[in-house]
Amino acid sequence: MDNDNRRASRRTEVLSNHLLPRPHTTTTLLSPSNCLSYSPPELSSSNPVSFDTSVMRSLLDGHNLDDRDWLFGLIVQSPLFNRQERGGRVFVSVDYNHTMEQQREETMRRIGYLLDRGVFRGWLTGDGPQEELRKLALHEVISMYDHSLAVKIGVHIFLWGGAVKFLGTKRHHDKWLRATENYELKGCFAMTELGHGSNVRGVETVTTYDSRSGEFVINTPCESAQKYWIGGAANHATHTIVFSQLYINGGNQGVHAFICPIRDSSGNVCPNIRIAECGHKIGLNGVDNGRIWFDNVRIPRENLLNSVADVSPRGEYLSSIKNVDQRFAAFLAPLTSGRVTIASSAVYISKIGLSIAIRYALTRRAFSMTPNGPEVLLLDYPSHQQRLLPLLAKIYAMSFAGLELKMMYVNRTPESNKEIHIVSSAYKATFTWNNMRTLQECREACGGQGVKSENRIGPFKGEFDVHSTFEGDNNVLMQQISKALLGEYIVCQTKKQPFRGLGLEHMNNPVPVLPSQLRSSILRSSEFQLDLFHLRERDLLGRFVAEVSQYQAQGESKESAFNLVSPLPCFVNYSFIDSLPYSLYVLPELSSCRGLGQSFLRTSNTENLHRGGVEGASWFIEGCLGSVEVVICLDFCG
Amino acid sequence: MDNDNRRASRRTEVLSNHLLPRPHTTTTLLSPSNCLSYSPPELSSSNPVSFDTSVMRSLLDGHNLDDRDWLFGLIVQSPLFNRQERGGRVFVSVDYNHTMEQQREETMRRIGYLLDRGVFRGWLTGDGPQEELRKLALHEVISMYDHSLAVKIGVHIFLWGGAVKFLGTKRHHDKWLRATENYELKGCFAMTELGHGSNVRGVETVTTYDSRSGEFVINTPCESAQKYWIGGAANHATHTIVFSQLYINGGNQGVHAFICPIRDSSGNVCPNIRIAECGHKIGLNGVDNGRIWFDNVRIPRENLLNSVADVSPRGEYLSSIKNVDQRFAAFLAPLTSGRVTIASSAVYISKIGLSIAIRYALTRRAFSMTPNGPEVLLLDYPSHQQRLLPLLAKIYAMSFAGLELKMMYVNRTPESNKEIHIVSSAYKATFTWNNMRTLQECREACGGQGVKSENRIGPFKGEFDVHSTFEGDNNVLMQQISKALLGEYIVCQTKKQPFRGLGLEHMNNPVPVLPSQLRSSILRSSEFQLDLFHLRERDLLGRFVAEVSQYQAQGESKESAFNLVSPLPCFVNYSFIDSLPYSLYVLPELSSCRGLGQSFLRTSNTENLHRGGVEGASWFIEGCLGSVEVVICLDFCG
Repeated sequence: MDNDNRRASRRTEVLSNHLLPRPHTTTTLLSPSNCLSYSPPELSSSNPVSFDTSVMRSLLDGHNLDDRDWLFGLIVQSPLFNRQERGGRVFVSVDYNHTMEQQREETMRRIGYLLDRGVFRGWLTGDGPQEELRKLALHEVISMYDHSLAVKIGVHIFLWGGAVKFLGTKRHHDKWLRATENYELKGCFAMTELGHGSNVRGVETVTTYDSRSGEFVINTPCESAQKYWIGGAANHATHTIVFSQLYINGGNQGVHAFICPIRDSSGNVCPNIRIAECGHKIGLNGVDNGRIWFDNVRIPRENLLNSVADVSPRGEYLSSIKNVDQRFAAFLAPLTSGRVTIASSAVYISKIGLSIAIRYALTRRAFSMTPNGPEVLLLDYPSHQQRLLPLLAKIYAMSFAGLELKMMYVNRTPESNKEIHIVSSAYKATFTWNNMRTLQECREACGGQGVKSENRIGPFKGEFDVHSTFEGDNNVLMQQISKALLGEYIVCQTKKQPFRGLGLEHMNNPVPVLPSQLRSSILRSSEFQLDLFHLRERDLLGRFVAEVSQYQAQGESKESAFNLVSPLPCFVNYSFIDSLPYSLYVLPELSSCRGLGQSFLRTSNTENLHRGGVEGASWFIEGCLGSVEVVICLDFCG
Repeated sequence: MDNDNRRASRRTEVLSNHLLPRPHTTTTLLSPSNCLSYSPPELSSSNPVSFDTSVMRSLLDGHNLDDRDWLFGLIVQSPLFNRQERGGRVFVSVDYNHTMEQQREETMRRIGYLLDRGVFRGWLTGDGPQEELRKLALHEVISMYDHSLAVKIGVHIFLWGGAVKFLGTKRHHDKWLRATENYELKGCFAMTELGHGSNVRGVETVTTYDSRSGEFVINTPCESAQKYWIGGAANHATHTIVFSQLYINGGNQGVHAFICPIRDSSGNVCPNIRIAECGHKIGLNGVDNGRIWFDNVRIPRENLLNSVADVSPRGEYLSSIKNVDQRFAAFLAPLTSGRVTIASSAVYISKIGLSIAIRYALTRRAFSMTPNGPEVLLLDYPSHQQRLLPLLAKIYAMSFAGLELKMMYVNRTPESNKEIHIVSSAYKATFTWNNMRTLQECREACGGQGVKSENRIGPFKGEFDVHSTFEGDNNVLMQQISKALLGEYIVCQTKKQPFRGLGLEHMNNPVPVLPSQLRSSILRSSEFQLDLFHLRERDLLGRFVAEVSQYQAQGESKESAFNLVSPLPCFVNYSFIDSLPYSLYVLPELSSCRGLGQSFLRTSNTENLHRGGVEGASWFIEGCLGSVEVVICLDFCG
């Protein structure tokens, strides 16, 4: 960053020129640079057609391209989405200078517009992988426009609707699913309480059964039992799912889910329900998070979501059990879908941030490398390449990984649920943390423009920050993964049985041996890349197991020993590596090979970037070897 | 994080209890936890008076405690600062649900209130270390309330006023300094342009001199020459400093600074001036950043800030030179002060974030460690301690370092300016990056509460993000430091002369040898700690120099070689170590001693934290050895 590096010294020089009677300061006259003007990268491209971005786009989006384009078209057509034309291009974005109250109403109006055009058709009444992929694709497009819009819709359809669908039975499906899809009602999901977020088992809301009237009575016994952060509750929701302890004849049967109306159709809060505001947030102000208190609210017996347990009219507690695994999977499914959509949208947001930062670096010039020479593009500075290109390469890898996760999810079976739970947890945590890190680097790489709301990167940081703690706190998820891998490792070691699942099958093979000479051809071979993955995971897992057992040897309980060891830094699932026409590199060993990476950097040619915009992936393997954890190379060009 | 770790498995268990006919699920009845209620840490303190927080406070604030309390009092008394009483405590904070336009007017009203009470008295007309320390202390208090308020005042007094004071002469001082202090006018500082931010030397605004009328003519020749990000320009400023190329008889004399009116006293924009809006930002919306175009605006010859160069009525360019060093220092001073105040306020904001997150962790309970046991405080979980306490320890160190920097600054001499420039750059970059990292961890450690605006941590992330790129881009500053250390190193090596300044004197001594046994008494000895500092810096600097010369050996120019090597990761100035009653540890070597750190963690007693709140520093050395870069221990307790 020699350009910036000269900043203060040049300013100093300018000033000291006045002070110091050096001959050159009086004779040499500065000439201001030619007037700068914006020119988009593609205009300065030497060969605009040599890179087929449509091929790349279909590889990256992976599915339902026409559905995505259709929805993009709907958004761009409507004034509700703040359409603006500049330089022959159309831009849409939320106006973050509006108050929380304004943003909430705008969000509802946008939902109405999308509803009228059939966007949500089949999101609950449809079934099968194709319907699910369409829903996921459209939801991704929505989250690229605005996180509030995506979350407001997600709460109503994925959480409320999903709970009705997966925890309810026919009587609930018939009554609620299509009505939800058509927004005849507005649902929310009251699980979290002020006193209990992660610890759902400890919720303090109490529901009892009154056999005389055949009703359940829901009550909030104390302040910490108030439902908190309930999206939709503050302004719009008419119904909610209530998670509550169920008492039958004085005995607590644990947490159950009930359907409870909270507002009438004209928006008046129902009797014995109290609702308050959660207030302004750093993002998601288009979502009306609220607090709910229940004062012995009575609901019909039929409102218990009874796919797994029921209460008879006379008040007997009944738990019917058929295929345990399937029922179990059905319970986890609605929770898993949240992690899948979060992981996927985090990748899309990183892509937008990187596109903006890299296009800016390809148009913004600063300083000349030679005296009185022309000013240089930011991206021509090695330090700027090192800041952005590894993150770009990484997001390619995560994009394909997220695609693979979606396919695992929509094709889930009872047998695959455990692996999906682990992989979705790992990707949700890894991708959302990476998203925040990526957005921060992009923000700083754009200088002051990065904090300007209309440039999107800055607001994304506030909008998507919540990703790292909702739908499973990232730190918690990483520990779950560590525990699952630890358990698998110990079972297989003690029982001397081969590893199966969780991507650990490679542990059954002999330890890979790396070639001593790392030539480019070797670096590009997927066999070598896989060996690196495998060595890395063997090492991480081995050290983790050793640390835990060390504490146990010191007399710690297994739980306590696990507590005292930091979770595995990373989880890599590479079952998808061979399933796509690209190869994935994880090269921690190479991060020290600065010379190698640097020489690549120095020979890099930003014209390639001009050509492909952010899609110039075949270039990034060159740009990133020196300093990056994950580098990707798309080989379909050659 | 065993508590959170059980999250999904417990939820699963609750659900599967319905599915699995295990005897315990039907016989064991869950009992909900006792109703939770908030209790501030001090209430649960075993011994509230055993830790004298006033001693700690005076150590941390360091100077002008009474002035700070006086200003805190003014803020808390006025409804302009959104005073709220809750539980017998008074809270003040900005309402971030207000629009940009509202926040700007609220900021001006708050300035008026502070002005009427004499807060700004002497900020420009006063001189000497005591006046400067008072100004710095009061500005720190203001930035703790609201960054917009601090920046809006800083632009008017430190940038506009500072430029008049340091770049102008008596005619400017007499006319503007007291008027500025009294807000008879409102100043802004037009240096940055759309096309040129870091590269100030390349600004495209052009000023010529008309000897017939005795006026300067300021012109914006093209779009990229528009002044951009000018704080105060969009709504309130009446005058600006314009940085412009100065042409005399067709010759460019380089960048000079001029005073130019832009609005009359009733707020109407002056003729030939065009002003536009920079728009909504992710923070600082109480500051009206704007864009300015000059259409051959004429100003009197006397408006050239002429402390270093002047133009005679007949149009001769005159550069008067007396003591070069002092004039040079005078030029740098106003720019340095910005880095000093930014470094200092970043530390205060990290302190607030950590106070909130740690107090929350000392009142929020989640999960029990034993079946049906009471729920446990978040901070009693080792993983939560590891997330927050190293950051707390680090901010103690940075707090004292920032204090030392302020003392260096207010006692500056022409000789000390280079060191102050380097140290202020290093602390500005290091502390502001650390602030963002600290706030992010605090935000995540508070879960959803961390994104709620009234809890402050979330908004701080948006408000102070700009710290890392304004007043010197952090990446640039770190490279300046590397270059300065590199230069010093090479000069001393080649000339075989001893190191002097920049904290490198220790390089004149033999390489320190560390004891093989690291007992606690050794870890606590400042001699050992200094040895670690010195070894670390020797290693970093040695490797840096080696890499640069390696590239030069490959034929790279010195500039290019420097470009290709990442800057030094960290700069540590420890001249202040012996100047305060504490000892500072930098223990990268120890980060691998997990066992050591962990065993400390496990024996840690959060009661100590209850006692001291966030000031329980004497405890943190116990808590942090395992995983932290900087650990501090205050020994005045024992």
